[in-house]
Amino acid sequence: MDGAPPPASPAGLSAYVAVSQLLGLTLLATTGAWLGRYRGGVAWHSPLQFNVHPLCMVLGMVFLQGDALLVYRVFRHEAKRSTKALHALLHGLALLIALIGIVAVFESHRTKGIPDMYSLHSWCGMAAFVLYLLQWLLGCGFFLFPGASFSLRGRYKPQHVFFGIALFALSIAACLLGITEMLLFNIRDTYSHFVPEGVLANTLGLLLVAFGLVVGYVLTRDDWKRPPLAEELALSMDFKTLTEGESPGG
Amino acid sequence: MDGAPPPASPAGLSAYVAVSQLLGLTLLATTGAWLGRYRGGVAWHSPLQFNVHPLCMVLGMVFLQGDALLVYRVFRHEAKRSTKALHALLHGLALLIALIGIVAVFESHRTKGIPDMYSLHSWCGMAAFVLYLLQWLLGCGFFLFPGASFSLRGRYKPQHVFFGIALFALSIAACLLGITEMLLFNIRDTYSHFVPEGVLANTLGLLLVAFGLVVGYVLTRDDWKRPPLAEELALSMDFKTLTEGESPGG
Repeated sequence: MDGAPPPASPAGLSAYVAVSQLLGLTLLATTGAWLGRYRGGVAWHSPLQFNVHPLCMVLGMVFLQGDALLVYRVFRHEAKRSTKALHALLHGLALLIALIGIVAVFESHRTKGIPDMYSLHSWCGMAAFVLYLLQWLLGCGFFLFPGASFSLRGRYKPQHVFFGIALFALSIAACLLGITEMLLFNIRDTYSHFVPEGVLANTLGLLLVAFGLVVGYVLTRDDWKRPPLAEELALSMDFKTLTEGESPGG
Repeated sequence: MDGAPPPASPAGLSAYVAVSQLLGLTLLATTGAWLGRYRGGVAWHSPLQFNVHPLCMVLGMVFLQGDALLVYRVFRHEAKRSTKALHALLHGLALLIALIGIVAVFESHRTKGIPDMYSLHSWCGMAAFVLYLLQWLLGCGFFLFPGASFSLRGRYKPQHVFFGIALFALSIAACLLGITEMLLFNIRDTYSHFVPEGVLANTLGLLLVAFGLVVGYVLTRDDWKRPPLAEELALSMDFKTLTEGESPGG
């Protein structure tokens, strides 16, 4: 297909993206159902403030982060500049919502006198958030404003892509840890009897894994990658010619 | 570098592989230290039988699975047939050790009257194990004996690679869930005071994530992929010519 005019998105890609969005909305609904039906609902300045945390993290660190990653596949034939802006915007929104979720749990801990940052969930979750913020800042700096040289961008891009997917996976793992913590704190004695809350929250965990798998598959499938535009291809050729003399270890 | 005679492995690759092995051994040592120092050690037919489970899962589902994935990078200039056999053998060994770990936890549950398969850890862990076994059987069937047609192999290979990395990530996530469960069952009241056992087990969790990141990076870096041998390249050209007439949606 190299060099051919860009065709419409392949049917398989559209189907997978549709499934990912269906899974994403089911994720949010399941989180809402769990918190609403079994945990008393969600509210700020109240004993329910803690519940803002799981809701924000599933929405920000999973659903929006995943959708921000998918932008380059869904809009694979749009202008790169606007796709990039949407990618950065969605990640920024995800970070903002995650920040609200983090504030919620710290405030809730302070009110109840619970220490912060002692659990594996908090270590993994905070690492995911801080590295995600760093990745966003680096991404904006390299690719958006003012932007690095073409050669520097070319070197950083594969790292940006790898860490983007890795941080998405780590975010999902942190959510799974959070679900397990919450269940063992709240229904420790009945969890092993397959009570509905336990089964619902476990199902949420499997849905998170499924969302991650579908998004990961769409992102990494070779023939669904964004085809380079004609002018990008020309630039990339120039770049190849310019750098071919460099040491391969550089 | 296309078509050039195969050079020695790039220095960067060797360094990353060395770091991965150092991390892998540290993982095993940390698991051993946790179980030995704080959980009474490891033994079969005894109240310590449960402890066989985390040890086997870290060794089989993480360290050996990761090393089996790395085989195609470490031996990237060896004959494909022997590299493939080693890849299958290491995965088989990982599955066997994981099976021992699963038997250990089921027997330990039966002795203590604890129900099986109710937690998110058990759901994710069992899914990882069953899919890993299925992936191994499919891999042996397609690529080893008797082997599928060249065209069928070519179609299945990208799926095999994607699910291989995804199942490795899921296995690590299941381990993190297991660590959290074990801590909340054993040191629930002191975990939040940063007791040494909690900090050690959290560190084990971070080491698992670090091992996954390094292995994932080595596997997905484009210029570290196994260069196709001359005869494979020729075959692949034939294949491309043969299939170019097919519908792209197939």
